[in-house]
Amino acid sequence: MTFDAQAWLAEARSLIGETNVLTPNREEDLSAFVKDWRGKFQGPALAVLRPATTAEVQGLVRLAARAGVAIVPQGGNTGLCGASVPMTSGRQVVLQLGRMNKVRELDVRNNTVTVEAGYILQQLQELAASAGRLFPLSLGAEGSCQIGGNLATNAGGMQVLRYGNMRELVLGLEVVLPDGEVLDLLRALRKDNTGYDLKQLFIGSEGTLGIVTAATLKLFPLPTAETSAFAGVASLEDAISVLDVMRASMGDRFSAFELISHPALELVRQYFPDTPPLLEQDCAWYLLMKAADGGDGSALNDAMQAALMACMEQGTIKDVALASSLAQTQVLWDLRENVTHAQQMDGGNIKHDVALPISRLPAFVEGMLPELAHAFPGVRPIIYGHLGDGNLHFNVSAPDGVDAKAWQTRTDAVNKIIHDATVALRGSISAEHGVGQLKRDELLHYKTAIEMDVMHRIKKALDPQNLLNPGKVLNT
Amino acid sequence: MTFDAQAWLAEARSLIGETNVLTPNREEDLSAFVKDWRGKFQGPALAVLRPATTAEVQGLVRLAARAGVAIVPQGGNTGLCGASVPMTSGRQVVLQLGRMNKVRELDVRNNTVTVEAGYILQQLQELAASAGRLFPLSLGAEGSCQIGGNLATNAGGMQVLRYGNMRELVLGLEVVLPDGEVLDLLRALRKDNTGYDLKQLFIGSEGTLGIVTAATLKLFPLPTAETSAFAGVASLEDAISVLDVMRASMGDRFSAFELISHPALELVRQYFPDTPPLLEQDCAWYLLMKAADGGDGSALNDAMQAALMACMEQGTIKDVALASSLAQTQVLWDLRENVTHAQQMDGGNIKHDVALPISRLPAFVEGMLPELAHAFPGVRPIIYGHLGDGNLHFNVSAPDGVDAKAWQTRTDAVNKIIHDATVALRGSISAEHGVGQLKRDELLHYKTAIEMDVMHRIKKALDPQNLLNPGKVLNT
Repeated sequence: MTFDAQAWLAEARSLIGETNVLTPNREEDLSAFVKDWRGKFQGPALAVLRPATTAEVQGLVRLAARAGVAIVPQGGNTGLCGASVPMTSGRQVVLQLGRMNKVRELDVRNNTVTVEAGYILQQLQELAASAGRLFPLSLGAEGSCQIGGNLATNAGGMQVLRYGNMRELVLGLEVVLPDGEVLDLLRALRKDNTGYDLKQLFIGSEGTLGIVTAATLKLFPLPTAETSAFAGVASLEDAISVLDVMRASMGDRFSAFELISHPALELVRQYFPDTPPLLEQDCAWYLLMKAADGGDGSALNDAMQAALMACMEQGTIKDVALASSLAQTQVLWDLRENVTHAQQMDGGNIKHDVALPISRLPAFVEGMLPELAHAFPGVRPIIYGHLGDGNLHFNVSAPDGVDAKAWQTRTDAVNKIIHDATVALRGSISAEHGVGQLKRDELLHYKTAIEMDVMHRIKKALDPQNLLNPGKVLNT
Repeated sequence: MTFDAQAWLAEARSLIGETNVLTPNREEDLSAFVKDWRGKFQGPALAVLRPATTAEVQGLVRLAARAGVAIVPQGGNTGLCGASVPMTSGRQVVLQLGRMNKVRELDVRNNTVTVEAGYILQQLQELAASAGRLFPLSLGAEGSCQIGGNLATNAGGMQVLRYGNMRELVLGLEVVLPDGEVLDLLRALRKDNTGYDLKQLFIGSEGTLGIVTAATLKLFPLPTAETSAFAGVASLEDAISVLDVMRASMGDRFSAFELISHPALELVRQYFPDTPPLLEQDCAWYLLMKAADGGDGSALNDAMQAALMACMEQGTIKDVALASSLAQTQVLWDLRENVTHAQQMDGGNIKHDVALPISRLPAFVEGMLPELAHAFPGVRPIIYGHLGDGNLHFNVSAPDGVDAKAWQTRTDAVNKIIHDATVALRGSISAEHGVGQLKRDELLHYKTAIEMDVMHRIKKALDPQNLLNPGKVLNT
């Protein structure tokens, strides 16, 4: 059966309306949908489809299934691994879920909210706050990323230490399956042991098993007091000792524990020269910490100060600055965000997003630095990340004088060194960014054949026609 | 091909040793393994197999697969739904994992521990405590239930409000698949987005998809201060308001929020007459609350008292007693355990384990009480449970004068009233106890055909021969 693209598109238009089927041949600019924001991945799309309801998604999926058209589900298209843009093989459409942006139910007393996949993360944070609640997922792209994408990639970010990844924030899902059936798992329950927990399959599977159209998410009490601190330590071992002390004394009031290496801070100072001096001495590593609680802030501040003092006495913290105003707090967290921006401005770095058992991080970093220096003389590792979760963004900037483009050609060699060491210590080569196209083939190298086989069996059980996001995560 | 049981057992003996293959024809007493502790479920077993290593489990699974012998994985056999004992159909062996009880790794600095499936829950709590850590899962059977069973049933218990169900406590699993391959997912990472999170499939699947042989679990700082309180409230609405206030002011220091109805307390007083009076007035409902923290107890006590006082001022708490000693704390938590014991001694009650959105619990209970009274005049609902999780043990004791056995014959009718109302409010008919044999057929009634179909597809993808715990959870 030959495929008549025009007839197919006409059917799609009749399902979701003329203006919601964007096609390249109308000379519409599809680049926001077919190219990722870093410009690393791009593929042709037959069309970009923008349904507004679950029923419309169902109709489109059935239409695609009949014609063997592959579907690339897409949220805010802010991912780093190319999962949300088309690949060059075969007939693909982008299913852009941004018009599915309704709040279905806010149940303050149950501490839950049900929103559609296209709802923007930051809007959800604001909606929760307006009801005196916290939706804790927090990450750089929050102004444009969508809940569906956060689910598809099991997003992490700044407060995983306290609240977990996106997976831990989900109570229920509504999913359109590859055959167009709706799997209604929209439960708002803290406990439900009635058979397999199917929603887990879809979280983090990057749109390869089903299309999430709505989710019921956990809310938390909105902290009324917050305090942040910036500390310098001499070693990663000391940093981990600090984490121990802070968690033991503050429990889950302690909500963020970020690491910034001295070279990363220097890079920020280089590109953001009005970054204020924060400590009286330079240290090898810096810690950015946050605690939050109900009540007024005085008990929280006292607890934070006492715990930091204990670390000073143990000698693990060399110097510390406590933010005593909102403005000072903002300075600290801007600094954290500026690590990312400074690297972008510096150009040419090879990014890694590894996780390790926290106990093994010091040995990992101590082994990596000389190995990289030996393999690539003059190389500049820019290390920072979510130390409380064992997650490092271990980025490697070009040696001085090496141009950005030339450095990118060494990506595979740099990856191999870092990822081999990571996996040797039973770490993960993608802590929070996912797999997408970028790490798909590396996965084959680092996972066991049995694990890959079970993943393929699950894919086949749910998507036997291989219609959903083919070529992402798995080589299907 | 005819099945030669004796030859098969001889092979099993050669794999794991003579003494670890228990058979009925040797007149060994297998009742502890083939019958559940409540005496509700029982089936014949060709043998009870007690392997000591993952390799032995592999060998047995392959042996079983070749001969089409079904395997019933079993931990402490403390479940309530008959998942861990054989069914009457076909050739089944019990695979008892109690000899797999080694600690593989305790990594204090990473806050993780890796133990084998047969490790006893209480031993794990003690092991963690000896390292200054908390393993938070806590439930009535902790002295004999095993980690493998806790995983298979996604166990809940007393501290879910703060620490989540067993699922939330798992970082890694080792699983023997139905074809005898070992799926090594023993990662000790807080973040790992490298493909499908396969471990989720096995947690809560009651041994129908694979045999968990070891797990890497999260540990937490060991609280150094604890405080408990017992409060009386007039209504469930007020109880939920109390929960709001306590969580808003104490955050995750607030770790347990248990509900006991007045009739449940009266039943305890009847069977445990030296239960001390706790409050000056009777109330319709009682709340048993716990908070825990690091540091010394004074700040925690102050925070607890201030929050309780705020509830008194709002009028939601009528009367409250704060435990001021360990002995008093013990009295409160014994009382909670004695609700279960008193019902056992009272005989003849029909148990339910429902979960609802917390916001809908008041309407649910207010609707149920008159409906049950109308359908079964004189009936005595004994309601208690984990209110903080929306989980009620809504048990229904026989009307006075109706004998226990006669009352049990009404089980289906009582279940139907309670479960219909639960599902109408989008609740769960098994919050923490699982499905097993007991609720398998009810599941068909309350789940959508699509959800059941996806469960069957997963089962088929992993266990095409239907060797693992057939007839549990799914009608396979």
